[in-house]
Amino acid sequence: MPSLPDMTTPNLDALAGQALAQGGHAQVPAPDAGQPQFVEFLQRMGDNCLILGHRVSEWCGHSPALEEDIALANQALDLIGQCQLWLGLAGEVEGRGRDADALAYLRDAGAFRNLLLVELPNGDFGVTLMRQFLFDAFHIEMLRALRTSADPRVAEIAAKAEKEVAYHLERSADLVIRLGDGTDESHRRMQAALAKLWPYTGEMFLDDAVDQAMADAGVAPLPSALKAAWDRTVASVLDEATLALPADGWHHKGGKNGIHTEHLGYILAQMQFLQRAYPGAKW
Amino acid sequence: MPSLPDMTTPNLDALAGQALAQGGHAQVPAPDAGQPQFVEFLQRMGDNCLILGHRVSEWCGHSPALEEDIALANQALDLIGQCQLWLGLAGEVEGRGRDADALAYLRDAGAFRNLLLVELPNGDFGVTLMRQFLFDAFHIEMLRALRTSADPRVAEIAAKAEKEVAYHLERSADLVIRLGDGTDESHRRMQAALAKLWPYTGEMFLDDAVDQAMADAGVAPLPSALKAAWDRTVASVLDEATLALPADGWHHKGGKNGIHTEHLGYILAQMQFLQRAYPGAKW
Repeated sequence: MPSLPDMTTPNLDALAGQALAQGGHAQVPAPDAGQPQFVEFLQRMGDNCLILGHRVSEWCGHSPALEEDIALANQALDLIGQCQLWLGLAGEVEGRGRDADALAYLRDAGAFRNLLLVELPNGDFGVTLMRQFLFDAFHIEMLRALRTSADPRVAEIAAKAEKEVAYHLERSADLVIRLGDGTDESHRRMQAALAKLWPYTGEMFLDDAVDQAMADAGVAPLPSALKAAWDRTVASVLDEATLALPADGWHHKGGKNGIHTEHLGYILAQMQFLQRAYPGAKW
Repeated sequence: MPSLPDMTTPNLDALAGQALAQGGHAQVPAPDAGQPQFVEFLQRMGDNCLILGHRVSEWCGHSPALEEDIALANQALDLIGQCQLWLGLAGEVEGRGRDADALAYLRDAGAFRNLLLVELPNGDFGVTLMRQFLFDAFHIEMLRALRTSADPRVAEIAAKAEKEVAYHLERSADLVIRLGDGTDESHRRMQAALAKLWPYTGEMFLDDAVDQAMADAGVAPLPSALKAAWDRTVASVLDEATLALPADGWHHKGGKNGIHTEHLGYILAQMQFLQRAYPGAKW
C-alpha cells in the first residue's frame, strides 16, 4: 500500500535545471505569475482529489470488511495528500497568499472546480467502487500525460501521484470485476451503479478555454485527448466484469466551472465546519 | 393549521403589572439579572425547539404525501418560532448581548442543551412521527405547567406555544394510531420506531440542580413531575395504536448538560453554515 505522499515543497531549482538539460520547453509558465488559467487548472486537479478524498473518507469505520475499510481510508489519504500538492501550487501561482488549507476550507461551493462525478453521494459499496473506477481510469491518463508537463512542478506532482493512482486503479478495477462477475445481487448492484454514474463521465473529457490554454502552453493535455485510452480501459474492465457498457447519450456538466449538484454544499458544510467555526485554528 | 408565532417582544411592563395584580410571586427572578440557571433552563426549552424544528424541516420536499409535507414544514416553523422566543429571552436574561440568532448559529455542540431524543436522525416516516409524538406528549405538559410560571415572560411564551403544541400532539397521536393500527408493514415500522426511541425518553424526566432551582423559584415544574401525565398519554395512544409499550430499562442521557450524540455536530454543520461562512450576514 502506498505511504502518504511526501509534503515537501518541490525543489524548483533542481527541477528547472533538469528540464533545461532535457531540452526544456519554451512555454514554461513563469512561476507565481498569477496566471488565472493555470490556477484554474490546478484547482480542478486539486478539487477532484479533495472532494473524492472526502467522499471516500466517509466510509471510514463503515466499510463491509476491515481490509476494505483500511484500503479506502488509505486511498482517501492519498487523494487528500495529492490535493495538498495541487492546491498548494495553485495558491503559490495565484500569489494572493492563500495556501492549500485556505483553498480547501474557505471557498464556497461556487468556487470549487471538481467534476460532478466525485461529489455524488457514496450510495452503496458498488456505487462507491464504480465511481472510483471510472475516475481512476481518467485520473491515471491525466497524470501520465502530466508527467511530461512543461511546468516542472506539475510534472513532479504528477509523477508522485501517478504511483498512487496506478494502485487505486488496479484495486478499483479488480473489485469492479469481482463484484460485476460475482453473485446475482452484486452483479445487479454494479450494473445499477454504472447506469447511475455513466451520465457523469462525459464531463471528464470536455475541453474548454482553460484546457486549451494549458494545452497550448504544454502544461497539460486536452481532456478530450484522454478519452480513447479511458474508453479502452473501461470497455476491457466492464467486459471482464460481465457488465454491459451503457449507451452513450446526454451527460451532466458544470463542475469544472463551479456549477455543482446540491451535494457539494453539504460536503463543504461538514468538511469546513472546524475552520468556519474556529477561524485560523491550528493544532 | 396554526399561523407562524408572533415574534413581537412581550410587553414586560404590562405583564409585570398583571402579575402583581394577580398577587404576583415572591420569587420572580429579576429580569436581565444574568442568572445562569435561568439562562440554562431557557436554552433547554429553546434548543429542543430549534433542533427538533431543524430535523422536521429536513422532510421539506421529501414527505410521502403533499399534505404531510406541508404539515411538517408548518410544524418545523412553529418550533423554530418558539425557539426564537425562548432563545431571545435567554439572551436577554444572560445580558451578554447575544440574541436568538447568535445563540442558534454561533454555539458549538457542547453548548447545546436539547434532549438527545430530538437530535436523532429522522429515519423513516415512522421514526419521525414516533419521535414527534413522544416529544409532543412531554412538551405539552411542560408548556401547560409553564403557563403559571412565576416569570411572566415565560408564562406568555408558554401560552403562545401551547396552542401550537396541542395541535402538534393531536396530529402526531393521530398518525401514530393510524400507522400503528394500519397495515402489517406500518405496524411493524411503528413498533420498531418505538423500540429505537424509547431509551431516549427517560432523559425528559430527569431532574437536576437547574430544574430544582427553577422549581424553587416557581419558574418551571420539575421534569419528574410531568412523567405521570406523559405516561398516561403515551399508554393510551399506544394502546389505541395496537403498539406494545416497551419495558422500561436503561435510558440515555446527557443532552440537557451538553453531552450529545454524534448527530448534533452534523446538524450544526449544516444549520450554521451560512453564519459561519459569512459572519454577520443579513438579508
